[in-house]
Amino acid sequence: MTSARRLLNDHLHAFCSDTAAYLEGVSGGPLSGLTFAAKDIFDIAGYVTGAGNPDWRRTHEPAARTAWAVQVLVDAGATMVGKTITDELTRGIFGENAHDGTPVNPRAPDRVPGGSSSGSASAVAGGLVDFALGSDTGGSVRVPASFCGLYGLRPTHGRIPLDGVLLQAPSYDTVGWFARDLDTFARVGTVLLQNSSVATRPRRLVIAEDAFEIADPTVQEALRPIADRMAALIELSATERLSPSTLSDWSSQQQVLQGREAWETAREWIDRVNPRFSFEVAERYVAARGYTDADVAAAKILRESVRARMASVLADGAVVCLPTTPTTAPLRGERMSVRNLLRPRISMLTCIAGTTGAPQLTLPLAEVDGLPVGLSLLGPRGSDELLIAFAREVVELV
Amino acid sequence: MTSARRLLNDHLHAFCSDTAAYLEGVSGGPLSGLTFAAKDIFDIAGYVTGAGNPDWRRTHEPAARTAWAVQVLVDAGATMVGKTITDELTRGIFGENAHDGTPVNPRAPDRVPGGSSSGSASAVAGGLVDFALGSDTGGSVRVPASFCGLYGLRPTHGRIPLDGVLLQAPSYDTVGWFARDLDTFARVGTVLLQNSSVATRPRRLVIAEDAFEIADPTVQEALRPIADRMAALIELSATERLSPSTLSDWSSQQQVLQGREAWETAREWIDRVNPRFSFEVAERYVAARGYTDADVAAAKILRESVRARMASVLADGAVVCLPTTPTTAPLRGERMSVRNLLRPRISMLTCIAGTTGAPQLTLPLAEVDGLPVGLSLLGPRGSDELLIAFAREVVELV
Repeated sequence: MTSARRLLNDHLHAFCSDTAAYLEGVSGGPLSGLTFAAKDIFDIAGYVTGAGNPDWRRTHEPAARTAWAVQVLVDAGATMVGKTITDELTRGIFGENAHDGTPVNPRAPDRVPGGSSSGSASAVAGGLVDFALGSDTGGSVRVPASFCGLYGLRPTHGRIPLDGVLLQAPSYDTVGWFARDLDTFARVGTVLLQNSSVATRPRRLVIAEDAFEIADPTVQEALRPIADRMAALIELSATERLSPSTLSDWSSQQQVLQGREAWETAREWIDRVNPRFSFEVAERYVAARGYTDADVAAAKILRESVRARMASVLADGAVVCLPTTPTTAPLRGERMSVRNLLRPRISMLTCIAGTTGAPQLTLPLAEVDGLPVGLSLLGPRGSDELLIAFAREVVELV
Repeated sequence: MTSARRLLNDHLHAFCSDTAAYLEGVSGGPLSGLTFAAKDIFDIAGYVTGAGNPDWRRTHEPAARTAWAVQVLVDAGATMVGKTITDELTRGIFGENAHDGTPVNPRAPDRVPGGSSSGSASAVAGGLVDFALGSDTGGSVRVPASFCGLYGLRPTHGRIPLDGVLLQAPSYDTVGWFARDLDTFARVGTVLLQNSSVATRPRRLVIAEDAFEIADPTVQEALRPIADRMAALIELSATERLSPSTLSDWSSQQQVLQGREAWETAREWIDRVNPRFSFEVAERYVAARGYTDADVAAAKILRESVRARMASVLADGAVVCLPTTPTTAPLRGERMSVRNLLRPRISMLTCIAGTTGAPQLTLPLAEVDGLPVGLSLLGPRGSDELLIAFAREVVELV
């Protein structure tokens, strides 16, 4: 980093203290001249991947190889300038890390940045880098993008290789990225998505009524007019309810299934190390451990019904428009009991892509009282490029 | 501390990093010439009471007054030379603190010291001080005394004022102390127990058969002959089973009732601060939070039956002899899943005094494979001095 960038980082607290990680981009590539950062769950050869937890850091060796996603960006010319702060083991949605500190939300300094890709969102929003890598299991790219006013994609599940990335719950884990402007965002996408399909336009646009209803009235008021203008771009458009019951039902099954996988992924290490966690993270692992096989079996049945319904909604190349988050970024340092009222509302929105493996792109098109909030496009599996292309049309409107 | 003591402390890691706390004993008192340390849950005026947790330390102001127990010892001439490491918020029984490190067990360096009064036991066993203050809610004096080969008393509940001591579960919290030799131990007792009653001899001695059965066979073999020699000192002696069902039933009610109180004591702070805890501590708070009012009501009924049975056992001035711990100190750094098999066995022994408020004195009279293990005397409420006096007779035997 330049010294000006270092000064800015001291202010934003976006990078890990181990900022020595640096990979010069290959010259002459399509991303030459761009700088980026990577959430500290992406392996960088020669460095310990810290995962936002001091005991993870302490009990792991330096990585032997650099993560696929980092390497492909460097090979394309982008320069990796540092590793960014993450919620512990990616298990958080607000971006407060009790060990490493909370990155600043440059758009709202008294608010959380959102997580778990908190430092990546902060670094991009604060202008430290041109773009940044994050991961999204339960919303960890979409939520900080919404809170920090950035473009962010949760890609089709399985689309971007996870090699060299710390797993949380493999059926849900994805690699995503952030940028401030759509051009940069799209350029990075051509590299990360590889063999890009030819993007076409959505054939139908569905405004998800029940998803909008979950948002604060002020957020609905800010986003709904934009959604309506989007709909006007597409001949076939409609307002529909996604869930025949409630989105709360929909999110509950992911909570169980993602939780079970997260526990299975971490349990051996937790048992061996007895790691320090913030209470909030520990209690979520304890809750996840508590899900019974019967809970899991019931959740799987519900998951199939969510997938079937969404297959029907997304048939014929439809794209769904929904709020990314139900609120703008909450205040830093709020009580857990207050946060615990917000988390399930967020999950009701993020679970739709999580459960179906569909790509979801969030666009920083609105503000409420000066605070950013994202509007999302969610398409069929494999429609990542289509969403980015359609976003270009949408951005012209706003 | 002298510089030699400091060197030894660097080795034993018994004191908190904040060793500046020092209170010179008043000259000419009954404890003049003795040095002691206090678990870092005892307030020392002008110092933050750290309670073994960095977020507790961070969110609390320096104490305005010195704890009653510390002050009375200083007034009696003893010099307080430092604050000792404790399990987080006293919520542990093995003495491993993920934040502050694990004090060395000087009698078994590859073993845990026992907790939660880990640093106090370590400092005394390692010769850094003549005696040390601890606290015992669920076994936190008795267990480290057993593991480190020390005298240790859990006094009659309510006997020693808790003013200026961090509470865990007030119905169970007590102030206790450790010493290497019984003379020092008894001298400290005359000060801490105040207005001492005239000590008489036990009128009956009960060897608790079901308590012995919980111990490892090697521990039983080491302790039982000593118990038999104790019994020979008292005309009326007998081997009896304490519980009409199992001691596991007995400990389960304390787990619920102590857990509920511990949660009620800590919940506001936990909600506000979202503190970092080791996973083990966090999961115990989560479990405690999960006890329902029905669980509590059922536990209270069981508690009454334990109290009634023990009132009958201890009638006529009887004293019960039992192993302090079922094993010698376990290895440092064991997996939680291994520890979790031992903890309930320990509780089956420690719950008897905890549930009844009876005093229990552990005596360092035995070893297994060179590792200390304690034998306990448990008497009626108020028999603290009697237990210490009887211990003098017993020690002559060994």
